[in-house]
Amino acid sequence: MHFCAALDRKPQMRCVLGLFEGVVTGAADGYARMAGKPAATLLHTGPGLANGLANIHNAKRARTPMINIVGDHASYHLQYDAPLTSDIEGLARPMSHWVKNIETVDDIVSDANAAYIAAVATPGIATLILPADIAWGDAAAGTAVRSMMPPVPSPSAFAIAQAVRALRSGRRVALHLSGSALRADALRVAGRIAAATGARLTAQNANGRIERGAGRVVVEKVPYAVEPALEFLKDIDILIRVGSADPVAFFGYPGKPSRLTREGCEIMEMAVQGCDLLGALQWLAEELGIPASAHIPVAERTEPLMWPRSGRLTDGAIAAIVAARMPENAIICDESLTSAVEFYSLSKASAPHDYLQITGGAIGIGTPLAAGAAVACPDRKVIGLQADGSAMYTIQGLWTQARENLDVVTILFNNGSYKILHGEMRNVGVEDFGRNAKRMLNLDEPGLDWLALSKGLGVEAGRATTIEEFSRLFEGAMSRRGPYLIEAVI
Amino acid sequence: MHFCAALDRKPQMRCVLGLFEGVVTGAADGYARMAGKPAATLLHTGPGLANGLANIHNAKRARTPMINIVGDHASYHLQYDAPLTSDIEGLARPMSHWVKNIETVDDIVSDANAAYIAAVATPGIATLILPADIAWGDAAAGTAVRSMMPPVPSPSAFAIAQAVRALRSGRRVALHLSGSALRADALRVAGRIAAATGARLTAQNANGRIERGAGRVVVEKVPYAVEPALEFLKDIDILIRVGSADPVAFFGYPGKPSRLTREGCEIMEMAVQGCDLLGALQWLAEELGIPASAHIPVAERTEPLMWPRSGRLTDGAIAAIVAARMPENAIICDESLTSAVEFYSLSKASAPHDYLQITGGAIGIGTPLAAGAAVACPDRKVIGLQADGSAMYTIQGLWTQARENLDVVTILFNNGSYKILHGEMRNVGVEDFGRNAKRMLNLDEPGLDWLALSKGLGVEAGRATTIEEFSRLFEGAMSRRGPYLIEAVI
Repeated sequence: MHFCAALDRKPQMRCVLGLFEGVVTGAADGYARMAGKPAATLLHTGPGLANGLANIHNAKRARTPMINIVGDHASYHLQYDAPLTSDIEGLARPMSHWVKNIETVDDIVSDANAAYIAAVATPGIATLILPADIAWGDAAAGTAVRSMMPPVPSPSAFAIAQAVRALRSGRRVALHLSGSALRADALRVAGRIAAATGARLTAQNANGRIERGAGRVVVEKVPYAVEPALEFLKDIDILIRVGSADPVAFFGYPGKPSRLTREGCEIMEMAVQGCDLLGALQWLAEELGIPASAHIPVAERTEPLMWPRSGRLTDGAIAAIVAARMPENAIICDESLTSAVEFYSLSKASAPHDYLQITGGAIGIGTPLAAGAAVACPDRKVIGLQADGSAMYTIQGLWTQARENLDVVTILFNNGSYKILHGEMRNVGVEDFGRNAKRMLNLDEPGLDWLALSKGLGVEAGRATTIEEFSRLFEGAMSRRGPYLIEAVI
Repeated sequence: MHFCAALDRKPQMRCVLGLFEGVVTGAADGYARMAGKPAATLLHTGPGLANGLANIHNAKRARTPMINIVGDHASYHLQYDAPLTSDIEGLARPMSHWVKNIETVDDIVSDANAAYIAAVATPGIATLILPADIAWGDAAAGTAVRSMMPPVPSPSAFAIAQAVRALRSGRRVALHLSGSALRADALRVAGRIAAATGARLTAQNANGRIERGAGRVVVEKVPYAVEPALEFLKDIDILIRVGSADPVAFFGYPGKPSRLTREGCEIMEMAVQGCDLLGALQWLAEELGIPASAHIPVAERTEPLMWPRSGRLTDGAIAAIVAARMPENAIICDESLTSAVEFYSLSKASAPHDYLQITGGAIGIGTPLAAGAAVACPDRKVIGLQADGSAMYTIQGLWTQARENLDVVTILFNNGSYKILHGEMRNVGVEDFGRNAKRMLNLDEPGLDWLALSKGLGVEAGRATTIEEFSRLFEGAMSRRGPYLIEAVI
């Protein structure tokens, strides 16, 4: 409460309310991915933190800088075990890179400073617990904040030399990218290296942000499903990690491998996240003797992208329409899961755009992520590709889009089921479901009325059941500003 | 997925889907409070558990028996740190009484058995982690489940003797009750003791379930706010805990005490939750020499309850109408917070009913709690007294009410704000809010359209802005079956 009251003394702070903590943490993630600096969340005690943890998990996997401020009981009050008491540090630790409980009033400034540094330098999740009596106490005057940002580390000369040897070995090499290695500038260097050495450029299946589209270097992502992922990676002898993790299966399945690289594939780590990945790639190019003027292969739109004009509405049709018709500099927030899987390949030469994904598999990030991205980039169109089951996890996020009048168009793929779970059932060998399993996997009886839900949360919406209807609604949404939802019945 | 598929081989299991895990855990709480036996939740990995933790916290505080089954990666897959990997045990421990990871296939039966016993005997939260390879593995045939329920403990003879001495001391004594001491049978014994000894009967501010209404023994609850709570308890010299915790302030506030009993009040623990509290009270009555035939003061309805027939709709008017007009055997699920605070005292001599509350201060329990109670008691009317801000935390629960066609009437108190936080701001001395703080505490710009939200989730709804409208909608809702929502604009 004292923290809330203090917000009025800092009118330059933009305070965005979410009606559920999962909206708050997901929006903080979207903001930081696009703004390049952390947002702070304000959560209340253990349950409030718990409500935000799923999207904190996604942010942790995206290595998004985030500062969570968690209000707690007055420190002297904890011993009485009042109803809201819980082990906040214990809850925070699994999803945080850094956790600290502020012990005295005079620690506030240095602890807040340390949280900021932890969030930015890691980069990752810093969780700072603020007891009520610390919030209402009087800090010593004039405590100065001193910037103590550590320098951004570079990779080791050994790691670069090892990568050079790999790229000159004549074996089949992939530069496996994630994090800031997927920004346009770093991708240009990686593209130069790939063109000069014959290496492939690959990316994790899920990444925080990729700058892509016409004029940018193309990077393919490892597929989600095990078999196509094995096929995708089967020719790689050496995989060089640049801000990425080993390619592994999203789940373990009976009789299927966990590692997606082929038996005997050598994996080397050139640079971890938190390193200067652009600098690392530049250094590598230099060591390889590739001049800055060397050819950089980029996606080119040699002819207009095609899209279907009529007929049955499918997720593939929607992917093609969005890929062809989205405006320059759009921000795509993709939590479409089984829907719109073709979007990534169809949009290779689309108008330049940013592509943001669910990164930790914790569904319910899409709507908040889009909200946060729109707060960070008020002049860009945000397009959410949103699965229905996942949308229901943080549906409250639409209200935040309405309140902040954010320029977000949500394309809601209504297939009336947790379709990804139908696929996972088949993955474990179950083809026929009975009534109990069906009722756990389907969003029917009753179906969700997305127009009513959207209206209830203050966001105008339209329903499309044909390609013609979808095209009309999409064009309309692109030509206006402010939040809008298109229910695409597929 | 294997667990889901296996559900089809147990069609006698009732599987209830929630569109968000907080719905699932809140419904499991409501079910167990009314059914007197645990429900099992099925959650998926760390983020799925995290989404359910807030309502698990409430259940933990209510000492509700609950078994959470949390699916995890195949055990051999954990080492690869796939995106959904997290420290599930670490997340579970703060909100669970008992946590276990199933290590081998042959442990399934004994671990599941142990989880059941932990949930019922504690009573409380048992969390069982089920790795995928354990779920799909082949267990040895014929592993028998052996019931190993420990006997329900009794209090010590010393504790009873101490309570007898207190009640005979001539000092002012309160029997402070919670848990199963608030069921009608235990309350009759407590009422007998109170009448014979002059002791007061008090209850915690928040309790899992109270059986009350006409013909039942009245127990007053400690008020939420510090000042009235101090006043309420100021005359008590000895407080005897029967399944309850020490009366402490919900929050610590500058200059206000944490303990609510007066300085020098002696607190003694006669019996903890998990004990046979009815038996403990009977033993106490016996030691005091109070015959079973002694007078038991109960709430009597000497004249019809009054309620307002017209005028401005207020939360007090609604409380009076519900108290006077609810049917026999209703189940009240109260997450009205600042609204309907008068309901508890107004309904002392209402038709006999069960009264269920938010117990751990983690808002968002009401809608799921009502759903679970309705599953447990299909022949009883469930009435939710629901604050708007809290409702938005687990609004998905309405859909579960619709799908299961549960007989729940939700009275949605629409005051367009987190009104309790306005009060807490004043509690810490802030009277004037600026724009930043206001926007954090109000649910406006835009207001929520509750009729549309309810429709979107498949629940019919009506809006009341006057007492006449509310009465008409309430009578209509009482005379029909199935889920219904009344938006009460107050």
